Amino acid sequence: MIKAGILGATGYVGQELVRILYQHPEVEIKILSSKNHNNQTYNSVYENFNKICEIKCNENELETIAGQLDIIFLSLPHGVTSKLLTDSILNNVKVIDLSADFRLKSEVDYEDWYNFKHNNKDLLSQSIYGLSEWKRNQIAESRLIANPGCYPTCALLCLLPLVKEGILEVDSIIIDAKSGVTGAGRSLNLTTHFSECNESIKAYNVTSHRHTPEIEQQLSEFYGNEISVTFTPHLIPMNRGILCTCYGNLKNSYSYDEIEQLYEKYYQNEFFIRLTKKGVFPETKWVKGSNYCDIGFTLHKRAGKIIIIGAIDNLIKGAAGQAVQNMNLMFNLEENIGLKSIPMFPV
Amino acid sequence: MIKAGILGATGYVGQELVRILYQHPEVEIKILSSKNHNNQTYNSVYENFNKICEIKCNENELETIAGQLDIIFLSLPHGVTSKLLTDSILNNVKVIDLSADFRLKSEVDYEDWYNFKHNNKDLLSQSIYGLSEWKRNQIAESRLIANPGCYPTCALLCLLPLVKEGILEVDSIIIDAKSGVTGAGRSLNLTTHFSECNESIKAYNVTSHRHTPEIEQQLSEFYGNEISVTFTPHLIPMNRGILCTCYGNLKNSYSYDEIEQLYEKYYQNEFFIRLTKKGVFPETKWVKGSNYCDIGFTLHKRAGKIIIIGAIDNLIKGAAGQAVQNMNLMFNLEENIGLKSIPMFPV
Amino acid sequence: MIKAGILGATGYVGQELVRILYQHPEVEIKILSSKNHNNQTYNSVYENFNKICEIKCNENELETIAGQLDIIFLSLPHGVTSKLLTDSILNNVKVIDLSADFRLKSEVDYEDWYNFKHNNKDLLSQSIYGLSEWKRNQIAESRLIANPGCYPTCALLCLLPLVKEGILEVDSIIIDAKSGVTGAGRSLNLTTHFSECNESIKAYNVTSHRHTPEIEQQLSEFYGNEISVTFTPHLIPMNRGILCTCYGNLKNSYSYDEIEQLYEKYYQNEFFIRLTKKGVFPETKWVKGSNYCDIGFTLHKRAGKIIIIGAIDNLIKGAAGQAVQNMNLMFNLEENIGLKSIPMFPV
Amino acid sequence: MIKAGILGATGYVGQELVRILYQHPEVEIKILSSKNHNNQTYNSVYENFNKICEIKCNENELETIAGQLDIIFLSLPHGVTSKLLTDSILNNVKVIDLSADFRLKSEVDYEDWYNFKHNNKDLLSQSIYGLSEWKRNQIAESRLIANPGCYPTCALLCLLPLVKEGILEVDSIIIDAKSGVTGAGRSLNLTTHFSECNESIKAYNVTSHRHTPEIEQQLSEFYGNEISVTFTPHLIPMNRGILCTCYGNLKNSYSYDEIEQLYEKYYQNEFFIRLTKKGVFPETKWVKGSNYCDIGFTLHKRAGKIIIIGAIDNLIKGAAGQAVQNMNLMFNLEENIGLKSIPMFPV
Repeated sequence: MIKAGILGATGYVGQELVRILYQHPEVEIKILSSKNHNNQTYNSVYENFNKICEIKCNENELETIAGQLDIIFLSLPHGVTSKLLTDSILNNVKVIDLSADFRLKSEVDYEDWYNFKHNNKDLLSQSIYGLSEWKRNQIAESRLIANPGCYPTCALLCLLPLVKEGILEVDSIIIDAKSGVTGAGRSLNLTTHFSECNESIKAYNVTSHRHTPEIEQQLSEFYGNEISVTFTPHLIPMNRGILCTCYGNLKNSYSYDEIEQLYEKYYQNEFFIRLTKKGVFPETKWVKGSNYCDIGFTLHKRAGKIIIIGAIDNLIKGAAGQAVQNMNLMFNLEENIGLKSIPMFPV
Repeated sequence: MIKAGILGATGYVGQELVRILYQHPEVEIKILSSKNHNNQTYNSVYENFNKICEIKCNENELETIAGQLDIIFLSLPHGVTSKLLTDSILNNVKVIDLSADFRLKSEVDYEDWYNFKHNNKDLLSQSIYGLSEWKRNQIAESRLIANPGCYPTCALLCLLPLVKEGILEVDSIIIDAKSGVTGAGRSLNLTTHFSECNESIKAYNVTSHRHTPEIEQQLSEFYGNEISVTFTPHLIPMNRGILCTCYGNLKNSYSYDEIEQLYEKYYQNEFFIRLTKKGVFPETKWVKGSNYCDIGFTLHKRAGKIIIIGAIDNLIKGAAGQAVQNMNLMFNLEENIGLKSIPMFPV
Repeated sequence: MIKAGILGATGYVGQELVRILYQHPEVEIKILSSKNHNNQTYNSVYENFNKICEIKCNENELETIAGQLDIIFLSLPHGVTSKLLTDSILNNVKVIDLSADFRLKSEVDYEDWYNFKHNNKDLLSQSIYGLSEWKRNQIAESRLIANPGCYPTCALLCLLPLVKEGILEVDSIIIDAKSGVTGAGRSLNLTTHFSECNESIKAYNVTSHRHTPEIEQQLSEFYGNEISVTFTPHLIPMNRGILCTCYGNLKNSYSYDEIEQLYEKYYQNEFFIRLTKKGVFPETKWVKGSNYCDIGFTLHKRAGKIIIIGAIDNLIKGAAGQAVQNMNLMFNLEENIGLKSIPMFPV
Repeated sequence: MIKAGILGATGYVGQELVRILYQHPEVEIKILSSKNHNNQTYNSVYENFNKICEIKCNENELETIAGQLDIIFLSLPHGVTSKLLTDSILNNVKVIDLSADFRLKSEVDYEDWYNFKHNNKDLLSQSIYGLSEWKRNQIAESRLIANPGCYPTCALLCLLPLVKEGILEVDSIIIDAKSGVTGAGRSLNLTTHFSECNESIKAYNVTSHRHTPEIEQQLSEFYGNEISVTFTPHLIPMNRGILCTCYGNLKNSYSYDEIEQLYEKYYQNEFFIRLTKKGVFPETKWVKGSNYCDIGFTLHKRAGKIIIIGAIDNLIKGAAGQAVQNMNLMFNLEENIGLKSIPMFPV
C-alpha cells in the first residue's frame, strides 16, 4: 500500500483528494494536515466523512513526515510550497503540488503573475507539469509534479492537438471559460457569498487571470514557438464543472473528418478523454463526479474558425483526480485505478 | 456474477441503478429495457455513460427475459408491474419492484390512492416491503421486493425506533418533508420546468400524497396498532436530496440520552445509518451520492415534543441504492457491497 | 416630501429600503449611513444603483441627523439601537427599527434570547410592534416602530385569525419555516458560502431560533393567554422568499368554508393579503418582488389538524416593504403607496 | 390612455409585458389573448397576478380587435405573425411584433434560418427593427416594429459603436453569449427540465443559432458593408439575464480612453445604457428587473483585441421592456416612462 499524506486537506480540493484516495485500492492515507482545523477530526470539518474518516488533522512539518510517507499531496495556497520544499525532502518522498508554485517555467513569472518572489529555482527546473495525457513519461519518472490548474487542464486538452499539429494561426486563440463556484475554494469572499453569485453570471480577471501564462507556456512548448492567448474566465452559479469554449483561426481549410482524425490520433486510446460525436457538444453535467474530459468541436467555415468545447469536473480532472492519475503514473499503477467512477447525474 | 436486468432503465432511478450496478463487483448488467428509448444505445440517452455503457435498450417481455437473468429491477410507472408480474416469472427470477405496486397491504388501497384496480392479490400478499434495516430477514428470503418510496424510507428510518418502542402519542406525528426535483422524475411537467421551480418553494399534495398510506402502514405494523400521520411534501430547488423534519408528542418525559440510547439500540450497528451528534442536524449535502441516511433529533421540552430530522439521497437510499442493498440481502452478499461510495461534496 | 434617512443602508434589507423609497412618490432619501462603506458612493457598493443613486454613504450620529429628517429607518445589528435611541431623538424624528431591539416585551427577554443587556426599558414600553395589518391604529400614532422579523411576519399573518378566534389547541402549534438565503444577510459566513448552501437543505437553530419568543408574544397577546410554539427554520437554496407551513390541532370540527369565512373576516379588505383558492397553496415565486403575503389552508380531518401555508418575500413584506407600509401609516398616506409593484416572475 | 392588447399573453415574454404595462401610467390593457389558456383568467395562469389582473384570456382575431386598440403586442411563435398581419390591420392599429417574423431583411432568409416560407414581402419591407437606441426616429414613425431578439439586443448594443466607427477588423467578431433559462420560454422541453439544466452549462446551436443573421444584418447595415460573426450561445442555470462576451480585433492601436470616448459619444445621454468604470465589468445581477443594458470593455494589447461585455435582463431589455420603450417612442411619450424600475437585487 502506498502511504499518502495531504497537506491542506480541508480545502475543497483537499477534501476531494481524501474522498478519492479513501476509495483507491492501493493507497492508505496516513496523515491529514490542516492549518485551519488543527486538532479537529476530519469528519467534524466535513460531515460527509462521518463513520468513514475520523482521522485527526494536525499541522505537520513537511520534513518530519517526509520519511513516513511514499507520497505527499500539497494543496496549499500559492507561494507556500516553493518555500517549504527542499531537495532533501524530495529524496525521501514523492510530491504532487496542487498549487501554482512549480507550474511556471521561470521564477520571474511568479513576480509578474503571483506577486511573490520565488526562491526555489532548482526545484522549479526539476518539476514536471502534470498534464497526464501529454507528459506521461516524464511524470512517471519525476519526484515533483506541478499539478495543472483547472482551467489550463481543460483548455490545453482541447487545444494541444491543434497546436501541436501547427494548424492554428498563432495569436488567434480565444478561450472563453466558465467555471462553477467551487473553483474559488472554501475561503469566505463576497464574490462567492450565495446571494451574490447565485442567479448571476460575470466575467472576472479579464485578460489578467493567473492561468494565462500557464496555458501559454504549455501551448508554446508543444508548438515550438511563442503563443499568446486571450483567456476570459466566467463565474457560473453552480457548484462544479468547467466548460471551455475555445476559438481559433485555421491556417488552411479542413473538413470535419480531417480534424476528427487529428483528435483521434492523440486521444483515441485515452481512457479519460471522450470525443463527442459530430453535432454533439460537451456539457458539464455529463462529467461531474468523474475524471473524464469531454471534447467536441465544429468548423465555422464562413469565418474560417474552429470552435472547440471541453468539459471537466474542476475538482477532479481539474485538480484531485488528475493528481491521483499522476500518482498512479509515478508508482507504475494502472493509470485509471481508483478513478473509474462513472459521472453522477443529475447532481 | 449475478445477471441483472432493468426495465425502465432510462428514468432517473433506472439510470442510477445502471450506474450503481455497473460499479458492483458481483453484478453484470445483461438487459436494459426502455419503452421511450427503444433501440437507442444507453449512452445516447445518458451521455455520462459514453465509453462506459453502450448497451442498446430494447423493449423486452418480462416472461422472455426472466429465464436469462438472476434478478430484474422494475423501475416502471405505477400500475404497470402488478399487471406484468406472475407466479411463473417469479419462479425464474427474483424481482425488485421500485414502483408502488406491491407496497401497500391490500389491493383496495390502490383504488383509493393510486386510481387503478389492482388485480394481483396473490403476489401482493407475498411481496416484502424492502426497508432493508427493518425487514432484513424477510427480504433475504423473498423473491419479490416492493422497494420503498423515497419519502417513506427517510420518514420511517426516523420514526420507527420511537414508534416501535411505543413512546409517541398516536396521531401526533407530523412529517414535514422536503425533496429535490429529481424526485419528480424525468417526464416533462410544468411543475419541474426550470424557471417554474428554480428559486421557489412550495408544498404539494398536501394531506393527499400517495406516500401517506405507505408510511402509515409500516408505522402501524411496527407499532401493533393503527397510526395515522400528517405528511406534507415540499419541492426544493435542488437536484437531489430529501430532508424529513418529523414532529411527535412524547407520552412521557425523556432525557436526550435516553432517546439517544434508543436510537443506538436500533441503529448502532447499521452501516448505512449515521446518528448525528447532539446539537448537530442532518443536511442533505452530507449524504448526496451515497446510500447513507443521517438522523438527528432534539427534544422540545416546553412543548413536550420531539423533533427528528433525517436526510437521504432520494435516488440512492430512497430508490436505487436501497434496491441494490436489498439485492445484496437476497443473494447473501455483504449488505454494503457496491454501495460504499463516500458522499460527494460539494455537488 | 417626507425626508428619510437609513442607518445600515448597505445590508440587504437596507438596500431594499433604498430601492423601495427611491420609487416612493412621497419620500426623498436624504441620508444613507453605513459603517462598513463609509465615504463610498451607494452605487459603488450596489452597482444596480449606477446612474440612479450616487449618494455618498457616511457614518452619522443619530442625534445629529434626527433634526434634519422626518423618519429614520434603522437597519442595524441586534443590540445596537437600544443603546442609540433616546427620548430626545424621538421627539425630533419618527423611527422604524428593523432590528429586534424593540420587539420583545420585557428587557429580560433580551438576555435570554439575544445575549445582551437591554437598558432602554422606557422606550421598549413605548414601542409598537409593527405588524401592519394587526396594529394599524397603534402604528399610526406611534413614534417608534419595532418592525417585525421575517419569519414572525409570515407565521403571525397565517396564525392570528385562528388564534384570535381561539379555535386552536394551545401548544399544538408547529411552524415549519423555509427561508431563502438573503434572510441571513450580507455578512460572510461558511453557512452562506455558495457551495455550502447551494443544492442542499438543512434545519437550523432548531427549538432555539430568536424569532420564537417574538411569535409567541404576539400570539399570546391576541389570544389573551400564554401560547408556546414549536418553530423550526430551514435554509433553502434560493435568494428570496419565506414559506411557513403551520400545523395546529383544532378544538372542534370545522368545515373548510367556516375557516375560509374566518380568514375573510380578517383579511378580505387587506390589500397585501391574498387568500388562495381551495386546493391551491402559496408558492414563494408568486410573491417575490412584492409586499404581498399569500395564505392558503387545508383541513386534515382524520388527524383533527389544520395546515396553514403562507408565503412572503422576506426582504419586502418580511422587512423593508412592511417598514414602508408602517411609514405610510405613520404619515397618514395610503397604506399601499410606493408598494404596489406586481410580483416579478420568473425571477 | 393608450389601449393595448397582447396576443400570446401567457408566455414568459407576454407575462412580462402584462406586468410592465399594468404599471405604465399611460396604458390600459384591454385584451389578453392566449391560445393555450383560452377562457382562463390571467391570474389562474400566473398567480402573481391574483387580485391584480383577473382579465379572462380569449382567442382573438387580429382583424376584429385591431379597431378597438391603439397598439397590439404580438408575442407569438415564429412563423405566425407574418401570416396574420395585413396592411388593413396596420391601418387600424400599431403593432410591435416580438417574434422574428419581421426582423430579417429578405423573405429568403426565413427559409434558410427559420424553415418557413415568408409570404409577406410588403410588410417585411416596411417593418422597422426596433433597437430603440439606434433606430429611434424610424421607430417613432413606424406602424410595425420588429422587436429585436434578446441576444441581438445585447450583442448589438455592445458592438455597434465600434462597428459604426469602423475600427474592428471585419470577420474577427466573436460573440460568446450566456443566457438564463427563461430565454427558452415556457414550453416544456427536456433541455429546460429542471434537473437537466440545473447545475450544468452547455453551448447550443453552435454556429447555427437563428439570432446570427439578425446580428449580422444590423452590424452590416451600420458598417456599410457585409460583416459575419461567430456567435455561440450558452445555457446558464439561472432564470434571467444575458451576458455577452464579445471579442474583436482592432484595426489600429487605441488607448482605453479613446475607446471610452467613442462609447460615450453614442451612449452618454442614453437613459438605459450604463457604461461601467474602467476595470469593472457588467454582471447580470445588476440589471435584473430593469430595462438597463450595462456595458464594459478592456483592451488586450498583446493580442490586439478588444473585449466588450454587456449584460441585460433578457425578458426586459431583451424583449418586453424594449417593446414598451418602442411603444413610448411610437406614441411620443417620454422614452423611459413605465420603465424606470430599479434593478432588484438579490433576486
